[in-house]
Amino acid sequence: MIDPRFFPKKNSIALAEIIAATGVTVADTIPLTLNLSNVAPISHAGPTDVTFLSNRKYVQHLATTQAGACFVEADLAHALPQSTVALVTDQPYLAYAKTAGLLYPAPPYPQESFQHPSAVVADGVVMGKACMIGPQVIIEKGARIGDHTVIMGQAYIGEGVKLGSFCWVFPQVTVTHALVGDHVVLHSGARIGQAGFGFAPSFDHGVGPTKIPQLGRVILEDHVDIGANTCIDRGSGPDTVIGRGTMIDNLVQIGHNVTIGENSIIVSQVGISGSTAVGHHVHIGGQVGVIGHITIGHHVKIAAGSGVMRNVPDHQSVGGRPAMPMREFLKQIAYLKKMMS
Amino acid sequence: MIDPRFFPKKNSIALAEIIAATGVTVADTIPLTLNLSNVAPISHAGPTDVTFLSNRKYVQHLATTQAGACFVEADLAHALPQSTVALVTDQPYLAYAKTAGLLYPAPPYPQESFQHPSAVVADGVVMGKACMIGPQVIIEKGARIGDHTVIMGQAYIGEGVKLGSFCWVFPQVTVTHALVGDHVVLHSGARIGQAGFGFAPSFDHGVGPTKIPQLGRVILEDHVDIGANTCIDRGSGPDTVIGRGTMIDNLVQIGHNVTIGENSIIVSQVGISGSTAVGHHVHIGGQVGVIGHITIGHHVKIAAGSGVMRNVPDHQSVGGRPAMPMREFLKQIAYLKKMMS
Amino acid sequence: MIDPRFFPKKNSIALAEIIAATGVTVADTIPLTLNLSNVAPISHAGPTDVTFLSNRKYVQHLATTQAGACFVEADLAHALPQSTVALVTDQPYLAYAKTAGLLYPAPPYPQESFQHPSAVVADGVVMGKACMIGPQVIIEKGARIGDHTVIMGQAYIGEGVKLGSFCWVFPQVTVTHALVGDHVVLHSGARIGQAGFGFAPSFDHGVGPTKIPQLGRVILEDHVDIGANTCIDRGSGPDTVIGRGTMIDNLVQIGHNVTIGENSIIVSQVGISGSTAVGHHVHIGGQVGVIGHITIGHHVKIAAGSGVMRNVPDHQSVGGRPAMPMREFLKQIAYLKKMMS
Repeated sequence: MIDPRFFPKKNSIALAEIIAATGVTVADTIPLTLNLSNVAPISHAGPTDVTFLSNRKYVQHLATTQAGACFVEADLAHALPQSTVALVTDQPYLAYAKTAGLLYPAPPYPQESFQHPSAVVADGVVMGKACMIGPQVIIEKGARIGDHTVIMGQAYIGEGVKLGSFCWVFPQVTVTHALVGDHVVLHSGARIGQAGFGFAPSFDHGVGPTKIPQLGRVILEDHVDIGANTCIDRGSGPDTVIGRGTMIDNLVQIGHNVTIGENSIIVSQVGISGSTAVGHHVHIGGQVGVIGHITIGHHVKIAAGSGVMRNVPDHQSVGGRPAMPMREFLKQIAYLKKMMS
Repeated sequence: MIDPRFFPKKNSIALAEIIAATGVTVADTIPLTLNLSNVAPISHAGPTDVTFLSNRKYVQHLATTQAGACFVEADLAHALPQSTVALVTDQPYLAYAKTAGLLYPAPPYPQESFQHPSAVVADGVVMGKACMIGPQVIIEKGARIGDHTVIMGQAYIGEGVKLGSFCWVFPQVTVTHALVGDHVVLHSGARIGQAGFGFAPSFDHGVGPTKIPQLGRVILEDHVDIGANTCIDRGSGPDTVIGRGTMIDNLVQIGHNVTIGENSIIVSQVGISGSTAVGHHVHIGGQVGVIGHITIGHHVKIAAGSGVMRNVPDHQSVGGRPAMPMREFLKQIAYLKKMMS
Repeated sequence: MIDPRFFPKKNSIALAEIIAATGVTVADTIPLTLNLSNVAPISHAGPTDVTFLSNRKYVQHLATTQAGACFVEADLAHALPQSTVALVTDQPYLAYAKTAGLLYPAPPYPQESFQHPSAVVADGVVMGKACMIGPQVIIEKGARIGDHTVIMGQAYIGEGVKLGSFCWVFPQVTVTHALVGDHVVLHSGARIGQAGFGFAPSFDHGVGPTKIPQLGRVILEDHVDIGANTCIDRGSGPDTVIGRGTMIDNLVQIGHNVTIGENSIIVSQVGISGSTAVGHHVHIGGQVGVIGHITIGHHVKIAAGSGVMRNVPDHQSVGGRPAMPMREFLKQIAYLKKMMS
């Protein structure tokens, strides 16, 4: 539930504000002054709540919802009861997100500078306007922090790192050897910039493989979002690059020299090996593994749990271990099922 | 080995104490004053050690063990040498656990309050009786901590968080947006309560997918145990809930709105996607992936490495990617093996 | 790119120095005083850079490289343009690593003692000569630190832990119940020594499975390298042991009582369950899962994404879930592909 100790709420929101923010269409008979006081899932929403239906798996809830209003696609609006105002839109989930953001505004970026006395900030660090530096943060020499950036308690910002403006660094993140753009979010325990796993398979010195100096950087472009405990290794000479707007979930491994394009989505526990290039608008499901030194095109979709061993051309969907075109993968599953029956 | 610098030992323990703690049965001829000084694995135990045989894979060790006493099931007791006292029980491993706990008592819960001067505790935090707050801990405003709870060095307790009594929070844990019950253990690097991976797939603002406000909580019920570097995202509106007595291993990912029942076991590197419901007494093997928005019943077993794409009814065992009933999965493996020969 | 804010460079290096460090052979006509100023990948190197060709996938770059010199195997040297000096060696990647190390020397081990005033070091900790203890480090009582060891900011060294000489502990590592050798590297967020996932499947006390006291240690031998956010649980009574020179990547899970031999390579997101023994010179690809209580021989190779359910003899290569000899696995993939066509 939405607990006021974690999320303070605006009192309520008028239908007119919702329309302005989301562009939904509403029957003429509905007064624009109608007030809605909260957001809630369709099965729990009450007469003063606004809800949404996006995943059609839940379509049976439309008929019985108690919600005051519901974001819904046009062809489903008729299924709502009379007591629920249909807020018609092509993108119900997006409209819901915007409305939730109006009722529960995100924590504001700082408007004045604050540095907790227990933070250890090296001499000569270039600090932007109105940054918030939490307790026990460490910022090493040569670092530069943009304006209105938040660095929460116990985060570590290494030597020479550049962090952009309007970034939000959660507790216990480490960032080294990295240039980070604006509006980047780093969740707790994210590890950015450590040395990649590079070694020459030689044992001539008697103490195991010889490590290759890892001399590159991590570049996180603007609006990147990195999940909790995710690891992004710095390049070995080239850089590791995450493109603008790309979102990476928790516990993901990104190897050295990997490049990922813009607006891609990488779900939890994915591993991408060194020097692989991933395109724009790619969607990689959970627990996928991708070998090194291959190219994944733009607008590719990779099913959860796949193991990708070869280049994937633009717009292809793949699945399986080893990954193959999705159609082939589904055929293979069906074939094996038939053989067993 | 059991190293006294890490685990100080009681001097020894009498057979009578072992019987009282574990309910084992022992031949009448054995004196209850018999003293045992340590626990050890069956292959290494000496004449003053007590050992156990639980995994029948190791049954050949019974005949040659040097142990002074051995927890063993009734039908195997005859295989022990005369020099080893058979401690007969249906649950040898449990009896061993209890005995090891007598010889090496767990570190005690604090009996008086301590707060390291380097901890940063906000004004108005409600602190229970006899809590131990380690160095460089951060506790934000509005948090409430129960009695006899230990928060070790460098942990981060976020705004408004409720931690119960007799909890043990290891170093470098982060907890935000969470209500935590009593007797909960959080291992190092566990991430509890960060925002889930929720976005609407719209790019109309030109900066990637639109994030959905994540307005729910994490509820950890009593006696929950969370492994090192495991991530549990808070709900998006509903809560993410881990039921009483459930144990989660290291590096596990639990998505937003997931609910897990009581006394379930989730092995390392499992990933459970958003809004999936898992029942009571479920056993999920290592590296399993479970997609979102499905229901796993009670007493389900999921083999290591499986990928679960559909609901699983109560009491079913499943395996494979995609997961199928275990019998079918084993048949498929055998079929492929035959086709290759 | 190699950014001087992260990696200060020596001005340049003479061919004679490269020959001395790597043992390459060079045509007699090339002056030993030839200066090279940097290292770079083959596709980007310019006339004063030295590069290498190791992965033959990139062999087409030889003809068009602009590099001043290139480490290359003898049979490929002819493919270089006249303007590029061929530095002939059996191990181009190793030679490159050594040369990069000359131009960009690794950060030096400390030569005098430093302890940041914000570090919390218990009375009686035995500190070696010339250690560097960073800000907000915690070192608990009874710990012993070797000479010239670096413990970076916010790391946690638990009670009784022994850390060797010339170790490098990156920020936000936790080490407890462990004996660590010399020249060990622990990357950020590594978790060494927490309790393993051991419980007896009994519910007679009504609060879930009964935890087994975890009374062993972690032993990291000399020259071990542990990746970011990797977890190594301590033994339950026996020890968890990582052999000399073994390198473990990020986000790996090593269960209690696991032993790994010398000079093995374990790639990211691998999970090895409790009490399994892994040999020397083993290579385990990314996302592999290995069940508990089995034995992996020496010089074994396990393909990425495999699930190993049985013992693997020395020198075998295996793949698949469940893992089988590599030849069999490839046959199976080909068979299924044929059936689908």
